[in-house]
Amino acid sequence: MAVTSQANAQEVAAVKKDAVRDKSVYSPVQLSRIDHTPTLPAVLQGNFKLNHGPPTTAAGQPEEIQKLFPCLYGQPSVQLVESDAPTYNVDQKLKVGVVLSGGQAPGGHNVIAGFFDYLQTHAPGSVLYGFKGGPAGIMRNNVVEITADFLYPYRNQGGFDIICSGRDKIESPEQFQQAVDTVTKLDLDGLVVIGGDDSNTNAALLGEHFRAKKVRTHVIGCPKTIDGDLKSPEVPISFGFDTACKIYAEMIGNIMEVNAQKKTLRQVTNSIADIVCKRAVAGKQYGVVLIPEGLIDFIPEIQHLISELNDILASQGCDDHGHWKATLKPSSRALFDSLPHSIQEELLLERDPHGNVQVSRIEMEKMLISMIETELNARRHEGGYSGQFKGQAHFFGYEGRCGMPTNFDATYCYALGFAAGALMHLGQTGLIASVANLTAPAAEWTVGGTALTQLMDVERRKGRNKPVIKKAMVELGGAPFKKFASVRDVWAVEDSYVSPGPIQFAGPTADETNFTLKLELGASVNL
Amino acid sequence: MAVTSQANAQEVAAVKKDAVRDKSVYSPVQLSRIDHTPTLPAVLQGNFKLNHGPPTTAAGQPEEIQKLFPCLYGQPSVQLVESDAPTYNVDQKLKVGVVLSGGQAPGGHNVIAGFFDYLQTHAPGSVLYGFKGGPAGIMRNNVVEITADFLYPYRNQGGFDIICSGRDKIESPEQFQQAVDTVTKLDLDGLVVIGGDDSNTNAALLGEHFRAKKVRTHVIGCPKTIDGDLKSPEVPISFGFDTACKIYAEMIGNIMEVNAQKKTLRQVTNSIADIVCKRAVAGKQYGVVLIPEGLIDFIPEIQHLISELNDILASQGCDDHGHWKATLKPSSRALFDSLPHSIQEELLLERDPHGNVQVSRIEMEKMLISMIETELNARRHEGGYSGQFKGQAHFFGYEGRCGMPTNFDATYCYALGFAAGALMHLGQTGLIASVANLTAPAAEWTVGGTALTQLMDVERRKGRNKPVIKKAMVELGGAPFKKFASVRDVWAVEDSYVSPGPIQFAGPTADETNFTLKLELGASVNL
Repeated sequence: MAVTSQANAQEVAAVKKDAVRDKSVYSPVQLSRIDHTPTLPAVLQGNFKLNHGPPTTAAGQPEEIQKLFPCLYGQPSVQLVESDAPTYNVDQKLKVGVVLSGGQAPGGHNVIAGFFDYLQTHAPGSVLYGFKGGPAGIMRNNVVEITADFLYPYRNQGGFDIICSGRDKIESPEQFQQAVDTVTKLDLDGLVVIGGDDSNTNAALLGEHFRAKKVRTHVIGCPKTIDGDLKSPEVPISFGFDTACKIYAEMIGNIMEVNAQKKTLRQVTNSIADIVCKRAVAGKQYGVVLIPEGLIDFIPEIQHLISELNDILASQGCDDHGHWKATLKPSSRALFDSLPHSIQEELLLERDPHGNVQVSRIEMEKMLISMIETELNARRHEGGYSGQFKGQAHFFGYEGRCGMPTNFDATYCYALGFAAGALMHLGQTGLIASVANLTAPAAEWTVGGTALTQLMDVERRKGRNKPVIKKAMVELGGAPFKKFASVRDVWAVEDSYVSPGPIQFAGPTADETNFTLKLELGASVNL
Repeated sequence: MAVTSQANAQEVAAVKKDAVRDKSVYSPVQLSRIDHTPTLPAVLQGNFKLNHGPPTTAAGQPEEIQKLFPCLYGQPSVQLVESDAPTYNVDQKLKVGVVLSGGQAPGGHNVIAGFFDYLQTHAPGSVLYGFKGGPAGIMRNNVVEITADFLYPYRNQGGFDIICSGRDKIESPEQFQQAVDTVTKLDLDGLVVIGGDDSNTNAALLGEHFRAKKVRTHVIGCPKTIDGDLKSPEVPISFGFDTACKIYAEMIGNIMEVNAQKKTLRQVTNSIADIVCKRAVAGKQYGVVLIPEGLIDFIPEIQHLISELNDILASQGCDDHGHWKATLKPSSRALFDSLPHSIQEELLLERDPHGNVQVSRIEMEKMLISMIETELNARRHEGGYSGQFKGQAHFFGYEGRCGMPTNFDATYCYALGFAAGALMHLGQTGLIASVANLTAPAAEWTVGGTALTQLMDVERRKGRNKPVIKKAMVELGGAPFKKFASVRDVWAVEDSYVSPGPIQFAGPTADETNFTLKLELGASVNL
């Protein structure tokens, strides 16, 4: 087992001991899950070969992507299809590494389990290293060998505990050289990068760099993010999204649901107040409004106000008598004056080390409650509302990120990891493992690898062209949003909510995937 | 079907139609739960008779309780035991009502289902009315007849949707008379009150009043509260506690867990900062602190400060230059100055209509984060801490109140409701249904009724003696707290947490109850 220092060897031993000891403190549900065996897609159950597609291009600016990826650009995506006999070198033992990159998503452990089991099944005697703490583990060659015993207690479990994750980025020439040094020292055939859009962009850059420097290590990515914004026709969903959907849905289901979306702060406030009034008339003095976390980023007038406030705070500061307000543009001044006092205070008090307002710390949900209260009081005064309004804010954050994976995520992740092993074994690099046909039973899922460059576009950052995998935004013309739009007005006024209940691992409902994916893939959904 | 007005009849019809229509929008988990059949304790599966215990007294001040309950005081508690033949009048059809009182708790629907099924089994032809919207429904005679079809979609489901709940209290002589009018008009044999300590006290007062006024309606209570503070040797647990435990445990498990408890704000802050420092030295730059919601009520110095602030705000007000601070006592002044600026603002700005600080709206968790940040920065300055600290607050409130009941709560509630039916049928009143031996399989549970007066003490309120069922506080000498205390220090420093996973309705773990109850009942628990 290759380690960089004596201290590291001791650390690895400690981690192994921990993993065994921890097993005794697992909960009954965790223990019962450890022995759950995810179904493999049929194509991965037997022998398989590669079917190469046509040369690929890019999601945008292909000439620029080609300049950035001279070695990898244009390579075909591949599909795995049934074969009579193994198409890999049956005597080859692999030395490979795996890294978890970025925030946790339920199912990460199963990607590693699938990858490990691929090696055990098709390349016994192979060695799998886990890089600890994310990409920093690659740069510092901080590894643990993943063995069957070490891996066992993490199978089908939530979190990224097995080797932990990190948000460091391999960016500078020195850092790329550190990565080369590590994979050379460990003599790696391949590296699997489990991460989101940025991490997979990085995986492609690493693969390109290794190829350019004639380093023999291949790189395969796996799509991870609970946000659901890393997807394409070939990669229909990232793992973790299904579990997070269902955890948040249970929590919201426990307090009921209604939804709203509009453009300016005044419009948002008024449209919610309208719904509150309508429901009050119908005797429904209750309801739930879902506010997306990034809402504040999509209200331009707030952005303008904040930017003016930053300038004022940086130059003249704010006097106690409010004379500074005269410096605001009239529209910003009007907006500021319309805000509840507590939010005005937040805007003036909370500054980051650079003196800027910390937008992310402004509690949008409380601000809206406060503004809706004000609006409803005004309407009450004019006779337009006679109900009782009392707002209650709930913020749902990390609760969904570290839950135990659903059956769908457990199965999907296991297939992704197994596929990554197969792609690597068959000499592929610069691909993202892609498992599709996901509304069919798991045995019928299709498996392949998509050229990472095919998912890329170029953005200009700090005067340089940077490759990026475009974030998938909610498509207003897509099936899930259209379905939502078709029921939105009814949901706003009637009590049309489904309480999904807690995630089940057994029983008739355990293998259902989420409505968003079903709708995106053209399956029918009964809302 | 008896209703008070034409409007009410239409409303009832609408509710019935709704219930049937709603069935089509239930989630797969809900649909699969509807047909789940809770196991009945064996004694309720056959014929049973009453075993009367000795005369009872009260939890405190028995003479006072006797004055308040001259009819009911001293009546024996009862146990149901096996019998060769029915011990009730087999020809009797009952007319009975049920009401949900106070905040939601998972399992309320099953109490009603158990009660309904008792009637169907042992007194077919009986009529069950649900009082809508809590005790107000009794005062206004706002009822719906609960039939098999109407009840069906609510079986084993969360929430109190079937007839809703309310927090009104039957208190004044006029209100007691309204209750008498309603039960007389409906010709009720009995009324089941599903509620917490206050509601069960009210149930006993109603039972006493009916008896004193020679109204033939009997009253039986059922113990409900997610807080777990309504319990006694005879009533080992209230329903909803098990589900809420497990919902919060899943949510906390998803973000990991550690716990702390101390006395003054400075001590609380320092003890958490100590743990953060200790963990940082061990390389653990993470951890979770659980803060009980009522913490602020148990820190006397904060209560003193708030009371002084209320006086100042009511008399002189606060000038912008802070001269008002001189009016504070030195200790309160020092405390105020030690608070983060944002909390100072909250204390000065947020007032209720009476001009008082709204204690419940002060975000204790954010206040602590802010104070710990300050303390750690001071320690960093003195070389006592070199880690990175970033606090993240999560508030868990109603998320646990309206979840789908666990198997334990579904079974326990069904037995409570069935028992309430049996007690009523056998002519009992002023009892709370009590199901015990709860760590054994459900078939072995024991069933009885406990004299409500036996649980009571007297408190002096507004110059008058008021009966109260004493809230069960956490017993520092009890098994659950002792177990916690024995592992607290280890939990604070090591990563000793169990991630329970989501509540399961099927599989090997589905029938486990919670650790608190197991420990209280002397069962062993592996922490």
